[in-house]
Amino acid sequence: MSTKVSSPPPSSKDPIYSPEADAFGRPEGGSRRKLFTVIFESDTQAGKVFDVSLLFAIIASVLVVMLGSVQSLAEHYQKLFSALEWSFTLLFTVEYIARLSCVERPGRYARSFFGIVDLIAILPTYLAFFFPELMVLINIRLLRLLRVFRILKLTAYFYEYNALGAALAASRRKILVFICTVAIIVVLLGTVMYVVEGTENGFTSIPIAVYWSITTMTTVGFGDIVPKTDLGHAIASIIMLLGWGVLAVPTGIVTAEMTSRRMREDVSSARSCEVCGTPGHRLQARYCQDCGAKLPES
Amino acid sequence: MSTKVSSPPPSSKDPIYSPEADAFGRPEGGSRRKLFTVIFESDTQAGKVFDVSLLFAIIASVLVVMLGSVQSLAEHYQKLFSALEWSFTLLFTVEYIARLSCVERPGRYARSFFGIVDLIAILPTYLAFFFPELMVLINIRLLRLLRVFRILKLTAYFYEYNALGAALAASRRKILVFICTVAIIVVLLGTVMYVVEGTENGFTSIPIAVYWSITTMTTVGFGDIVPKTDLGHAIASIIMLLGWGVLAVPTGIVTAEMTSRRMREDVSSARSCEVCGTPGHRLQARYCQDCGAKLPES
Amino acid sequence: MSTKVSSPPPSSKDPIYSPEADAFGRPEGGSRRKLFTVIFESDTQAGKVFDVSLLFAIIASVLVVMLGSVQSLAEHYQKLFSALEWSFTLLFTVEYIARLSCVERPGRYARSFFGIVDLIAILPTYLAFFFPELMVLINIRLLRLLRVFRILKLTAYFYEYNALGAALAASRRKILVFICTVAIIVVLLGTVMYVVEGTENGFTSIPIAVYWSITTMTTVGFGDIVPKTDLGHAIASIIMLLGWGVLAVPTGIVTAEMTSRRMREDVSSARSCEVCGTPGHRLQARYCQDCGAKLPES
Amino acid sequence: MSTKVSSPPPSSKDPIYSPEADAFGRPEGGSRRKLFTVIFESDTQAGKVFDVSLLFAIIASVLVVMLGSVQSLAEHYQKLFSALEWSFTLLFTVEYIARLSCVERPGRYARSFFGIVDLIAILPTYLAFFFPELMVLINIRLLRLLRVFRILKLTAYFYEYNALGAALAASRRKILVFICTVAIIVVLLGTVMYVVEGTENGFTSIPIAVYWSITTMTTVGFGDIVPKTDLGHAIASIIMLLGWGVLAVPTGIVTAEMTSRRMREDVSSARSCEVCGTPGHRLQARYCQDCGAKLPES
Repeated sequence: MSTKVSSPPPSSKDPIYSPEADAFGRPEGGSRRKLFTVIFESDTQAGKVFDVSLLFAIIASVLVVMLGSVQSLAEHYQKLFSALEWSFTLLFTVEYIARLSCVERPGRYARSFFGIVDLIAILPTYLAFFFPELMVLINIRLLRLLRVFRILKLTAYFYEYNALGAALAASRRKILVFICTVAIIVVLLGTVMYVVEGTENGFTSIPIAVYWSITTMTTVGFGDIVPKTDLGHAIASIIMLLGWGVLAVPTGIVTAEMTSRRMREDVSSARSCEVCGTPGHRLQARYCQDCGAKLPES
Repeated sequence: MSTKVSSPPPSSKDPIYSPEADAFGRPEGGSRRKLFTVIFESDTQAGKVFDVSLLFAIIASVLVVMLGSVQSLAEHYQKLFSALEWSFTLLFTVEYIARLSCVERPGRYARSFFGIVDLIAILPTYLAFFFPELMVLINIRLLRLLRVFRILKLTAYFYEYNALGAALAASRRKILVFICTVAIIVVLLGTVMYVVEGTENGFTSIPIAVYWSITTMTTVGFGDIVPKTDLGHAIASIIMLLGWGVLAVPTGIVTAEMTSRRMREDVSSARSCEVCGTPGHRLQARYCQDCGAKLPES
Repeated sequence: MSTKVSSPPPSSKDPIYSPEADAFGRPEGGSRRKLFTVIFESDTQAGKVFDVSLLFAIIASVLVVMLGSVQSLAEHYQKLFSALEWSFTLLFTVEYIARLSCVERPGRYARSFFGIVDLIAILPTYLAFFFPELMVLINIRLLRLLRVFRILKLTAYFYEYNALGAALAASRRKILVFICTVAIIVVLLGTVMYVVEGTENGFTSIPIAVYWSITTMTTVGFGDIVPKTDLGHAIASIIMLLGWGVLAVPTGIVTAEMTSRRMREDVSSARSCEVCGTPGHRLQARYCQDCGAKLPES
Repeated sequence: MSTKVSSPPPSSKDPIYSPEADAFGRPEGGSRRKLFTVIFESDTQAGKVFDVSLLFAIIASVLVVMLGSVQSLAEHYQKLFSALEWSFTLLFTVEYIARLSCVERPGRYARSFFGIVDLIAILPTYLAFFFPELMVLINIRLLRLLRVFRILKLTAYFYEYNALGAALAASRRKILVFICTVAIIVVLLGTVMYVVEGTENGFTSIPIAVYWSITTMTTVGFGDIVPKTDLGHAIASIIMLLGWGVLAVPTGIVTAEMTSRRMREDVSSARSCEVCGTPGHRLQARYCQDCGAKLPES
């Protein structure tokens, strides 16, 4: 283990290598070191078992909260649910303390994203003593699931994540410009519909009318508010066709970005000639396309 | 026929060549061989006729079940429907037995995907004696239609299938990551809406609220549950715009994949070498990639 | 004029050149020839005027039928509408006869697509004497609008049409395979929902349930039928997420096709070197990229 | 400052450089010059402050109008809202007069797009004296937001804007052809549904039926009007599947356009010539396209 750790830091594409080791400091050995390996790392047997069981514990606790909100079930299994809820909370509390205790820099962990998530994942149950409605906040726990992406040997998945993220980030500006334009359109159209349809047809205020035009442009169309006048129908038809065309824009932006990345991957996965430097040879290619020289064996 | 069979196994793109011949064993001749040729193969006249009539029989039987579920019709034609239903079932039973009897390894056929589908396609009618509600299961029969894709000389279609499948498979990971993220978002948003709107506005439980936020993000928007509070409207608007942008991601993933494949097809449809026949040379290519021979000027 | 006509047949991208001239036979001259030029051709002043006024007449007559179906208007302007309707019908009848009379082969025109459309565009009004409900068929008239695409100097538009059509045609098979798969999925899911929800929740029959699952997968979501049971909600959620992903497939197919065409256009719009034949030079390029030879001035 | 201005006109991609300077004439100095710099230009500290505060003033005034339309709020804060409204209007009036006074050619400004927007942004409040319902027109003010894109150092954003615009403009014709086809389809389908369902099922007129088929094809699906007959359900199912496929077309058009642009950007970001600096050489290029000089080996 230690050998592996003392090895040069691997590529960012290797999630198995726990970044916490550097961030929070891996204790020098002994029981705390063992604990750290189990809790924060997943390349040992024990680490995997811990992470997977934690994953199921989180999902289970979330399910308990969700089912607990179902009236019919809540009545019958009220005791069971709160019992489960408490046991999960205690479990997570123990885990939280364990995490704090086994890292070199507890403060840094406590202030880290997951540190805060872990804390607010257990707080609600305790606070629910005084403010029962806080019970539902327990679903924040779900955010902990993000952590367990690491377990499932998600090297590639992390990579995909970054790919998706990068594509979206690259389209960031285009999308922002787009959103602004849409926002202006939506408010203007909403105002028009408010004037045309008026309060008696459900468009009780401009904010409601804007909500309606968002519902319509995004093709959600709840149908809780619908135009009733002929002019309203006409405008609504235009909004729908407009939204239809507009829907194509973000798709186009993201797709163009992704396609271009995909292409570059394709190209960069091809081989080049050592003699004339011509790139883009098929993987099975044996001779350069331009100078006929033999290609390096891949 | 036998000559064709003794010929080297054709490419996977040739569905006419019945894989059953190897899987289940083609009998050595006589009536069983004839039966096998008719039932399992479609490159003889009789085989085509059998497959096509089977296709229509399946569709007809499914239609009967569907129409039989329509109250108004069921009352008038009750006898007719059950009569048809029984005749179809007997027909398929006979076919099933025939399939079993004419292959060398009946067990292997019975355990094959289509073997199981064939069985559960006839079981319901018999079981419906004791459990009438099982009647509807007969539509599982529809799965049998998958088989008849073979008939319509669907070489190319199978190819398309594989193309679609490959594109989706290649995007598998991206999509999985995407689904997980969406699942987390949906549960969190559902919880928020449950807190904001509460039971009195139709958000009777967190699962229902999650169902609602799925309805909204996918832009289905049934309208059976709708936000009524101002804050609810605001959050709903955000969810809709979010879902709108999010909708672009899977489209982008699949499209980028398909486009890149399409491009490679375009490229590989470029010039070929006259010496070794290797395709896919760049338009600027001057030497063959495989044998180094000069390429014909394009 | 005649000179232009006697000129070699222009490229398929030139809609101005009336194909009717060959199909129906242009009379040798005299008044019929003049009539033919006005009615069937649009490259003379008179021809343009005729076509444009015809265009407006068609739209106007369609509007009359549409407005005539509005109860409130029908009551007040009943006489006006029927008067207008009759005048339009007589106008189109005269036009139809004129078309028949001025071509060399009336029979061929009468059997042509537009010939039939022209006929069934005037029939309903006459038939409406005996079967008033046929009145609405008059909107078939709308099909005549397809003809006037020619007027608006739509050379390029026809080209776009072909581009769209070609892209869709090329994706024909993929889309067909896709539709078949979707059809099977939809029927199976519909059956499941019928079993789960049952008649009391609005899923009164399997066809209705299939209609519902189509509504849901296409994200239309009318909301006239909605799941009420918990299991129903769960299945509906899956259908929605499924439909969401599935929506990406046809988009991907069409887009990949269009993008690949677009790319080829980009490439083919670049110039090649006359010395070494390297293609893909920018339009402003002055020297070949591979041999440095001067490029032909474009 | 003046030095910067006397510098050669920068590229169209630089919005910081106020085009108004040329359009409306920058006064030769003195207080008017200062005013001009503050109001029309945003590359001085004062200019930025002015623009940003103007941005917030516009948003605030729009919010006031929107909230003022909410019944519950309007009752309580009626006085506050009208007070705010009037102060904003006076503020904008002063600004408008300032703009008019500090430019060399007030008439040209008054007739410019933003000049007109600025005017009709303040008119409604005054007119609302006599016609209260004009109050809502104040939201036209929102259009003024378009101006402030300049502030946020939006060089790149403007560029994105142009990119989006160019892509849409290039697809202009395809989309127009597409819209026409859809319009014809929608009217025909609407008429059919009107005939099939009839007035008693909510399809009270052809225009309404057309409105419904637009609702359906765009997958909005309000659910205020739904088919009730079996035939109606069948046709609706077809419309939905049709609309589903059709939705792919505009997306494909826009995406193909954007992807192709994206690709060209990728290409043009390739190697440049060291002699004349021409960019956009293929990776395999050996000689510059413009000056024929040898390119650096990549």
